Amino acid sequence: MEKTRRSERMVVMTKVLTGQPERLFSLNYFADMFQSAKSTVSEDLALMRETITEFGLGHLATVPGAAGGVKYNPWLNEGQVASFLGGLAGQLAAPERIIPGGYLYMTDLIFNPAVAGRIGEVFATLFKLMEPEFVVTIETKGIPLAMMTARAFSVPLVIIRDEGKVTEGSAVSINYVSGSTRRIRTMSLARRALPTGAKVLLIDDFMRAGGTARGMHDLMREFQAEVLGTGVLVSMAEPREKLVGDYVALLELERLDERERAISIRPGRGISRQSAGSGRQFPPGDHAGF
Amino acid sequence: MEKTRRSERMVVMTKVLTGQPERLFSLNYFADMFQSAKSTVSEDLALMRETITEFGLGHLATVPGAAGGVKYNPWLNEGQVASFLGGLAGQLAAPERIIPGGYLYMTDLIFNPAVAGRIGEVFATLFKLMEPEFVVTIETKGIPLAMMTARAFSVPLVIIRDEGKVTEGSAVSINYVSGSTRRIRTMSLARRALPTGAKVLLIDDFMRAGGTARGMHDLMREFQAEVLGTGVLVSMAEPREKLVGDYVALLELERLDERERAISIRPGRGISRQSAGSGRQFPPGDHAGF
Repeated sequence: MEKTRRSERMVVMTKVLTGQPERLFSLNYFADMFQSAKSTVSEDLALMRETITEFGLGHLATVPGAAGGVKYNPWLNEGQVASFLGGLAGQLAAPERIIPGGYLYMTDLIFNPAVAGRIGEVFATLFKLMEPEFVVTIETKGIPLAMMTARAFSVPLVIIRDEGKVTEGSAVSINYVSGSTRRIRTMSLARRALPTGAKVLLIDDFMRAGGTARGMHDLMREFQAEVLGTGVLVSMAEPREKLVGDYVALLELERLDERERAISIRPGRGISRQSAGSGRQFPPGDHAGF
Repeated sequence: MEKTRRSERMVVMTKVLTGQPERLFSLNYFADMFQSAKSTVSEDLALMRETITEFGLGHLATVPGAAGGVKYNPWLNEGQVASFLGGLAGQLAAPERIIPGGYLYMTDLIFNPAVAGRIGEVFATLFKLMEPEFVVTIETKGIPLAMMTARAFSVPLVIIRDEGKVTEGSAVSINYVSGSTRRIRTMSLARRALPTGAKVLLIDDFMRAGGTARGMHDLMREFQAEVLGTGVLVSMAEPREKLVGDYVALLELERLDERERAISIRPGRGISRQSAGSGRQFPPGDHAGF
């Protein structure tokens, strides 16, 4: 009977904790649920933490004190990040992904919940020391990635609208120069979508010259937001100099040749470069896949 | 030792199964992972299934046969759906949510990953017999809900673009009359975004007259897609007659009075009405919260 009970508790606590990353649950919450002693729950959690680490399923953090408890972080280890990004780069290098105009077709992957979920976990891993209060993106294609990143951090998503389509009361708009089209465009965000002075993480699917990211930074300044970091799935190698200085690109598109139907894409050097500069998880150096 | 092992296996299998809803895992997958007998894994899963059901955490389905295995369905029971929608209606009824122009501000809730995730599970529960191959939405505000619904079904998301902004090769466009603005608008979808003859579920955040949903149906016909169902978070009570006949609304907005600052919103009658008509989970009748 006791044997069964522990197994049951493990199922319930694993589902509850891993289903809501970064949310803190008190030990009393589980003790009440199971009508068991806190010490029993505490023992269960110690075993769960070991198992989760051993099988590479993330990280269980215990927060001590009266307001403490336990929470699950969906962090990947370095090998998992490298192997996932390597696989993704391989899939994206297929010549049939070249779209007339020199674009790379990624939609089937980044709108796939399992892939987008994993990308969200990669961003959560790379930015894990930052504790953003909001994940901010701009419509449209980056939204699924940004949503899954917001889920991994357990914070709300904020979507900047393109071309002033806000129907949510007063809004702040800025003009920016899109790096790809070289046209002046407008982006807008409703006043009530983001409180003043928030700590935000910017997420998008693609960066060419960084004009859109630059615009997002400028718009954030209007909200007195603190931009903790900028993450994109793919950045183009050219132009080297982007309009934003500090960003993390998971993948770098070195070459997309429409005539020769050749794509060269690889895990972003930005990852180890960035983490070296800001003390994040990945130490600098020559890692497999980075 | 044996005691510890079962607890460990329970943690790992619960994380793997609940982390990827609707994905089928063979028993051999787990037997290999743990280097244990299939009969042991099978016993573990029987206990896990009982626990998951008992604690209202969803449903574990065993698929027999050589190509069989086990998968997790994030289905809610009737009481959980009623209590969640009742709570959501209460939050949405706050007068400060009225936006000039007669709109209802919902963004803070539907861009919250925990809320959006739960809404996705509600849609997965209501449409659970339908087995869609794709979840289809139209930009922008419905995307987070549609993404979490796609996640609950473990199928890809497809996003219809507004006003012909497709940069993904050849596209199909249709004109439609937006019910709210009465203007003729255009929606587009890239040819390669959806294979011919797919089974799709349409998801959106809001329905007024149903003009957008009607347009989505028309566009789906161009792809010879079979629309299995249409789900919206909120539909307006007026006009009664919508431009689409068959849809499920989780909530119904009966009244939004800008001058008197009054909102009346409640769980959608569409849920029991629809399920009565198509044999879905919820029987017709007068349920708490419906």
